[in-house]
Amino acid sequence: MAGTLHGVGLGPGDPDLLTVKAVKAVQSAPVIAYFCKRGRRGHARTIVDSWLKPEREELALAYPVTVEIPFADPRYNAALSGFYAESAERIARELEAGRDVALLCEGDPLFYGSFMHLYVRLKDRFRVSIVPGVTGMSGCWTAAGAPITWGDDVLTVLPGTLPRDQLAAKLAATDAAVIMKLGRNFPKVREALAEAGLTDRAIYVERGSMAEEKVLPLRDKRDDEAPYFSMILVPGQGRRP
Amino acid sequence: MAGTLHGVGLGPGDPDLLTVKAVKAVQSAPVIAYFCKRGRRGHARTIVDSWLKPEREELALAYPVTVEIPFADPRYNAALSGFYAESAERIARELEAGRDVALLCEGDPLFYGSFMHLYVRLKDRFRVSIVPGVTGMSGCWTAAGAPITWGDDVLTVLPGTLPRDQLAAKLAATDAAVIMKLGRNFPKVREALAEAGLTDRAIYVERGSMAEEKVLPLRDKRDDEAPYFSMILVPGQGRRP
Ligand SMILES: C[S@@+](CC[C@H](N)C(=O)[O-])C[C@H]1O[C@@H](n2cnc3c(N)ncnc32)[C@H](O)[C@@H]1O
Ligand SMILES: C[S@@+](CC[C@H](N)C(=O)[O-])C[C@H]1O[C@@H](n2cnc3c(N)ncnc32)[C@H](O)[C@@H]1O
Repeated sequence: MAGTLHGVGLGPGDPDLLTVKAVKAVQSAPVIAYFCKRGRRGHARTIVDSWLKPEREELALAYPVTVEIPFADPRYNAALSGFYAESAERIARELEAGRDVALLCEGDPLFYGSFMHLYVRLKDRFRVSIVPGVTGMSGCWTAAGAPITWGDDVLTVLPGTLPRDQLAAKLAATDAAVIMKLGRNFPKVREALAEAGLTDRAIYVERGSMAEEKVLPLRDKRDDEAPYFSMILVPGQGRRP
Repeated sequence: MAGTLHGVGLGPGDPDLLTVKAVKAVQSAPVIAYFCKRGRRGHARTIVDSWLKPEREELALAYPVTVEIPFADPRYNAALSGFYAESAERIARELEAGRDVALLCEGDPLFYGSFMHLYVRLKDRFRVSIVPGVTGMSGCWTAAGAPITWGDDVLTVLPGTLPRDQLAAKLAATDAAVIMKLGRNFPKVREALAEAGLTDRAIYVERGSMAEEKVLPLRDKRDDEAPYFSMILVPGQGRRP
């Protein structure tokens, strides 16, 4: 009988923010799979370190090196697509051999997660079970002690990859916002926030819930460096009886 | 020395979706507090049933009966405000006596949570520690097996309490949406989705991750009944390499 693919949400980074269900899933699967950069161990793999049982197989899915290819180039998409297809096949071989696979996912698996690309490729061939996780954004607004939405507040979640004008327009039209995927987009995102008149309400959070967590008002951030694990929050100001 | 207030996110309903940190918090606090309806035990309290240690005190915070007062009436707000102030004082007395209090929160505490109303009243007087949780929406899109956002998708979270026109406009302007707080707002929300041309992409989810979980395409839902724990998802259709 074929194995089951478990898409396991690990939460924002603190190993104690795994759910009980996630701990059970990573401890009972004979194969642990995770995405990583070539030659690196991967953040997801590190989060579960203290939870893993010694006897298990590991399947490291190393992203192809795409830094040389511009994002808009069709070869970028082709490289990624090939990588996901090949990763899906590596997992399929384990499942066909009757072994369950736990695929580790940062945050929640179905919220901008790489897991989704393997899920769509495997879900019609194998049993799949998904364990939802605490999102990175929940980890960040908790780190900031900042309630994100009150009463009738509308929350807009924006990828920092969007064009500046679009970001500014969306920001101006919402009550509360979360801007993810900063990195090189950070200066553009900061400009869009200024254009929407929101700089003074914005909070910058780096590595929410991890050991090196950093929280500061956006206006106090002097440099333009934003690592992969960073985001900006604009808390809502809705009804507070 | 005064106690610490722990705002503990419990996740969407499945007791195994508590985080390890949440389990530790509810097991170590001598006082467990939770919101409930008068005479009822409360959903949050039920979720932690299997996790609680026998020796602990319980503080049931029963909402005032406001069903007779129209929502727009200032007396509605005054009743709620008085209730939150009084609840905060009940918790403050425990903290002053040196006892830690774990205040149970459905989903994530800082995302449309009642906890926030006590948090703002107590955070400058006492130590507060917040445990983020899996949101109800993560529980619902997992139940539906529906990735909610891909690539550059914008996600808009809307309370069903908004006016119909506003809902329709926001829905038409986003890539992906979650509509919470359905209940009596359900017929209006359905109309707004139709107006935005999204009926066929919408998924209705009731009690995500709980034993009585229900998932169906919105177009297949015949009646207009939507319980408190229900929401509608409109999954994004962004980039999929
Ligand atoms: C590809 S998305 C994955 C999101 C993930 N599935 C989740 O549920 O949070 C990656 C982005 O999530 C955000 N992120 C995730 N975890 C974070 C954390 N602990 N601190 C700061 N940002 C985080 C960053 O903005 C990052 O660029
Ligand atoms: C006051 S909000 C609280 C949200 C909560 N703090 C969270 O993080 O999900 C209540 C709304 O959340 C939604 N909700 C929460 N948990 C749910 C679940 N398990 N299934 C369906 N809807 C849920 C419903 O739309 C409900 O009206």
